[in-house]
Amino acid sequence: MQCDSRSLRGVIPALVTPIDGEGDVDKRSLERLIRFQLDAGVHGIFVGGSSGEVALLDSVQRGNLVKTAVGMVAGAVPVLVGAVDTGTRRVIEHARKAVALGADAVVVTAPFYVRPNPREIVEHFRLVQAALGHPVVAYDIPSAVGSRLTPDIVEELAASKLVVGLKDSSGDLVTFREILRRTRRLNGFPVLSGSELLADVAIELGAHGLVPGLANVDPDGYVRLFQAASHGDRAKARAEQDRLAKLFEIISVADLGRIGFTAGALGAFKAALVLRGIISNGVTNVPLSSLVDRELAEVATILHETGLAPDIPLQVEVA
Amino acid sequence: MQCDSRSLRGVIPALVTPIDGEGDVDKRSLERLIRFQLDAGVHGIFVGGSSGEVALLDSVQRGNLVKTAVGMVAGAVPVLVGAVDTGTRRVIEHARKAVALGADAVVVTAPFYVRPNPREIVEHFRLVQAALGHPVVAYDIPSAVGSRLTPDIVEELAASKLVVGLKDSSGDLVTFREILRRTRRLNGFPVLSGSELLADVAIELGAHGLVPGLANVDPDGYVRLFQAASHGDRAKARAEQDRLAKLFEIISVADLGRIGFTAGALGAFKAALVLRGIISNGVTNVPLSSLVDRELAEVATILHETGLAPDIPLQVEVA
Amino acid sequence: MQCDSRSLRGVIPALVTPIDGEGDVDKRSLERLIRFQLDAGVHGIFVGGSSGEVALLDSVQRGNLVKTAVGMVAGAVPVLVGAVDTGTRRVIEHARKAVALGADAVVVTAPFYVRPNPREIVEHFRLVQAALGHPVVAYDIPSAVGSRLTPDIVEELAASKLVVGLKDSSGDLVTFREILRRTRRLNGFPVLSGSELLADVAIELGAHGLVPGLANVDPDGYVRLFQAASHGDRAKARAEQDRLAKLFEIISVADLGRIGFTAGALGAFKAALVLRGIISNGVTNVPLSSLVDRELAEVATILHETGLAPDIPLQVEVA
Amino acid sequence: MQCDSRSLRGVIPALVTPIDGEGDVDKRSLERLIRFQLDAGVHGIFVGGSSGEVALLDSVQRGNLVKTAVGMVAGAVPVLVGAVDTGTRRVIEHARKAVALGADAVVVTAPFYVRPNPREIVEHFRLVQAALGHPVVAYDIPSAVGSRLTPDIVEELAASKLVVGLKDSSGDLVTFREILRRTRRLNGFPVLSGSELLADVAIELGAHGLVPGLANVDPDGYVRLFQAASHGDRAKARAEQDRLAKLFEIISVADLGRIGFTAGALGAFKAALVLRGIISNGVTNVPLSSLVDRELAEVATILHETGLAPDIPLQVEVA
Repeated sequence: MQCDSRSLRGVIPALVTPIDGEGDVDKRSLERLIRFQLDAGVHGIFVGGSSGEVALLDSVQRGNLVKTAVGMVAGAVPVLVGAVDTGTRRVIEHARKAVALGADAVVVTAPFYVRPNPREIVEHFRLVQAALGHPVVAYDIPSAVGSRLTPDIVEELAASKLVVGLKDSSGDLVTFREILRRTRRLNGFPVLSGSELLADVAIELGAHGLVPGLANVDPDGYVRLFQAASHGDRAKARAEQDRLAKLFEIISVADLGRIGFTAGALGAFKAALVLRGIISNGVTNVPLSSLVDRELAEVATILHETGLAPDIPLQVEVA
Repeated sequence: MQCDSRSLRGVIPALVTPIDGEGDVDKRSLERLIRFQLDAGVHGIFVGGSSGEVALLDSVQRGNLVKTAVGMVAGAVPVLVGAVDTGTRRVIEHARKAVALGADAVVVTAPFYVRPNPREIVEHFRLVQAALGHPVVAYDIPSAVGSRLTPDIVEELAASKLVVGLKDSSGDLVTFREILRRTRRLNGFPVLSGSELLADVAIELGAHGLVPGLANVDPDGYVRLFQAASHGDRAKARAEQDRLAKLFEIISVADLGRIGFTAGALGAFKAALVLRGIISNGVTNVPLSSLVDRELAEVATILHETGLAPDIPLQVEVA
Repeated sequence: MQCDSRSLRGVIPALVTPIDGEGDVDKRSLERLIRFQLDAGVHGIFVGGSSGEVALLDSVQRGNLVKTAVGMVAGAVPVLVGAVDTGTRRVIEHARKAVALGADAVVVTAPFYVRPNPREIVEHFRLVQAALGHPVVAYDIPSAVGSRLTPDIVEELAASKLVVGLKDSSGDLVTFREILRRTRRLNGFPVLSGSELLADVAIELGAHGLVPGLANVDPDGYVRLFQAASHGDRAKARAEQDRLAKLFEIISVADLGRIGFTAGALGAFKAALVLRGIISNGVTNVPLSSLVDRELAEVATILHETGLAPDIPLQVEVA
Repeated sequence: MQCDSRSLRGVIPALVTPIDGEGDVDKRSLERLIRFQLDAGVHGIFVGGSSGEVALLDSVQRGNLVKTAVGMVAGAVPVLVGAVDTGTRRVIEHARKAVALGADAVVVTAPFYVRPNPREIVEHFRLVQAALGHPVVAYDIPSAVGSRLTPDIVEELAASKLVVGLKDSSGDLVTFREILRRTRRLNGFPVLSGSELLADVAIELGAHGLVPGLANVDPDGYVRLFQAASHGDRAKARAEQDRLAKLFEIISVADLGRIGFTAGALGAFKAALVLRGIISNGVTNVPLSSLVDRELAEVATILHETGLAPDIPLQVEVA
């Protein structure tokens, strides 16, 4: 599947990585999740991103994840794979494996743990591109990485064709808009928003697509939102976004005294998918915790309130 | 070499990883660097830490680094190896390789990229220890990791014997002291300071050892400081610390418009080692930049002013 | 002039405070500035806010500022006055003076310097309201204050009628939108955006008005943008916003090695107003610096490029 | 009382401001507090600082505070008064009043709310000094102010004689030590530490005095610590510091869900002073909360454990 400015658009959910009781990638659940997404009409899938717990996956898990995803998608839509790591050489190692397994594009952040400057960040992408010769999507996620892909950096990456698109999870709509302004002249360079809550606005401002984690739980909602916003039906897009904002409250049900922020959010996505009957197990990868019964009940209530009535009874074992 | 509360003390330099013109680990330079350190009387070495560019090393580089270091040290002192990565399973992968290659202990941070809570951080160390059955040193470096190993966490890790010691690079002397107070009763649990500039104070407060990056350049200075501070010769320790503070100014000669913070600091360590005739090449790992001539001249001046007159002419090729 | 949910809407520029050569408030320039704004059709004015250098004004300057503004506006539109200070009692002192001088509403932040929690922040507004018995507008500006007026806080302030509106300068469109959702049912509680660059989006999402600092320089532009966005003419609003984004680049011409961030931004607003012939002097209040000639020339260029050709020659004395 | 490099040394407690049931400054309690301090042998007092709730005091409270303190001290030791405000002109207003009421020196931070650069910060102190002609002490408290008085800034302030000393509440011992190194040659320029927990280390490194908030509760302890550390009796200084570290745990008994950080810390100081029979009322200034019974009991327990057995029964009304 070619990955270019025409194919990188629409709704590309950042999938969770289902885990089974032994801690292995749960291939059956992953296949059901992908089927669920394709049935909803998504335009691509993104595995091994932040929502996919990329930072917690070992080599075997990564391999199984990519193999299963590529096999299941079978060319229907582009498969993007995260090659997220601290440094250039390590990113290249991951990226080569992903490409060998059939990834249509790899998704790469700036180096982290170290503190590079903008020139060194551009050099990082230059080296990854040179080593790979395959589409690379730049990934701005300062909450995890600690630095920004500034408009200057993105403009240089785009103009030099070092990347084929951007996933923006900065939460900063001012710079997102500035990036849209600067890349507008570059033949439709795809700018994708990772925002769950400003998805309609992003599309209205000219973004080419959406890569929300919440689309795991409700791909149909984001597909409807994307269609409405793309066709200028603001009222419909707004209503869908408001409903999805309500749904997004599931990431806040967890007690942060007991469980960390990441586990609370990703655990809620997984819990909702269990409750909807898509995946079998709500656990997150070690060392993260999972939701407990009281929290699951709150997730179920929110699903109900947003029209996603759980398909299975509440007493299902989630954690 | 056993790694326990008796052997984890004294000066344990956090070594840089010399790189050659092809980007490979420069084994000859690494051997000379280790010989230089052992001749100065250091009590251990730490490879593959932050000063060793751990975040930038690929699998081959890591393997060569550990093999060369273990071979060169040959049991003379403990060899600590960084197993720094974002998640538990990935840390275990690195740690197993390091142990297989002869590491006496592995050095492990909290998970990063993700945002764990204290319970999940303790669980991380519990799982690493369980998988490894080999000494683990906890590593607190919030500037890179984004979270803290709080006194509560360290006390639990120490009391539960999940780790055999702590390397503190927090820069926060208040919590460092609190950790010393809390672990005092635990049979000499080793608390090591990564501070270049408060090394004498750390020892006077009861720290068991020092893991400074600057010891790459002047191991003799830190060994003298450690001995003086350990034996209560405050005036001598103070004078040595003042000289080393002057030497540490080499990390600030780089122009941060041109080069990132990490490259400016590690590049200065390497440049000084080139100027002192220990390693052959001052380059840092991709994608980081290296110092330029004007900056090298400043490093040389500071070496001269702190009694470490360069052994070789300035026109040596460094970058 | 009553200040309520009907009058708090539209464009309410956050005015700079013109200063003369002796450091006093330049009343003539202030009057010309207000005339310039009223002629453009603004719906209110806000003096003594962050753009008005409130943190730098002494008692005499504050008094002169409010008296002159109230006199010049003469009831044509509401006059909002900043009562920004670190604690409740100090805010009340300022607020009483402002009301005595004719302010239609006072604009109040959370306490700062101290670190209050949400309950204490609500208590702060409760006490200010009780002491004043006059309209209070809540002001969220975390970059200056260091804490947030969260959606929970704003909802409580609005529902309890402790404030008559919100000025949001958080830069965070996600929470801005959440606040709009939560206050929608409260009889048109006015939510005003301080954003220069997302003004059109804010209106499209349901904001009642705009309080941008950049409106000092181009009130006509923001009035056109507001009208277009309010009437659903998205293309026109978008075009106006794009031009104003270009104009906003004047805040980045200053060399931050020489001059601080605040002075660079407010100095640019003042320099542009000098160049447009509205105020006489581009100086900022002590201890801030002002722009230098090279920077002035850049401001003039940007004015020219955005259709605001300077009315007076460049050699005017600005600093 | 002259305030110079000879008189600015020793223990100078940063006093709380006792408040009565009507919210006025409780003069009797303040007098008892000052008598308590003088009896303990303190070398100066500091009123209207961060521990004195300076950010929350109105004009009347400030006036009463300074008059009462100056009258009670009666020249026995220097009286330092905080002139903390956001901008130069406002600081000068406060400082003039304080000097007129008998302050021996005023204590001044960098401007805040605005974002000045180092040059503008130096200019701020230059203007304050020029307007005042009276001793000014520079105050570095980045947790409240948001910027640093860097070693470069302090060195310039000291060398240009714009300030007569520094109070460092940065919590950063590395720069504190650098400042000591740089000012050593300047005829004993007094560098005072605001640290509760590194007071002994600060003195051992060459600091001239201590300005801890915790000295409100136990001035005798800090005087003993200062004497011991000054005379090289490290064991005694260390033991005193360890006991005071235990005492400092009172600032952490408050439930931060109910009460803000500042109120939790200052409320604990006041509660301890009530329990020790020195002041009458533990309330903090509006809008801050005060401790509740359960928290008071914890404070009493800690007082008991650190040898400061409460003089009065626990059922005293504190909040």
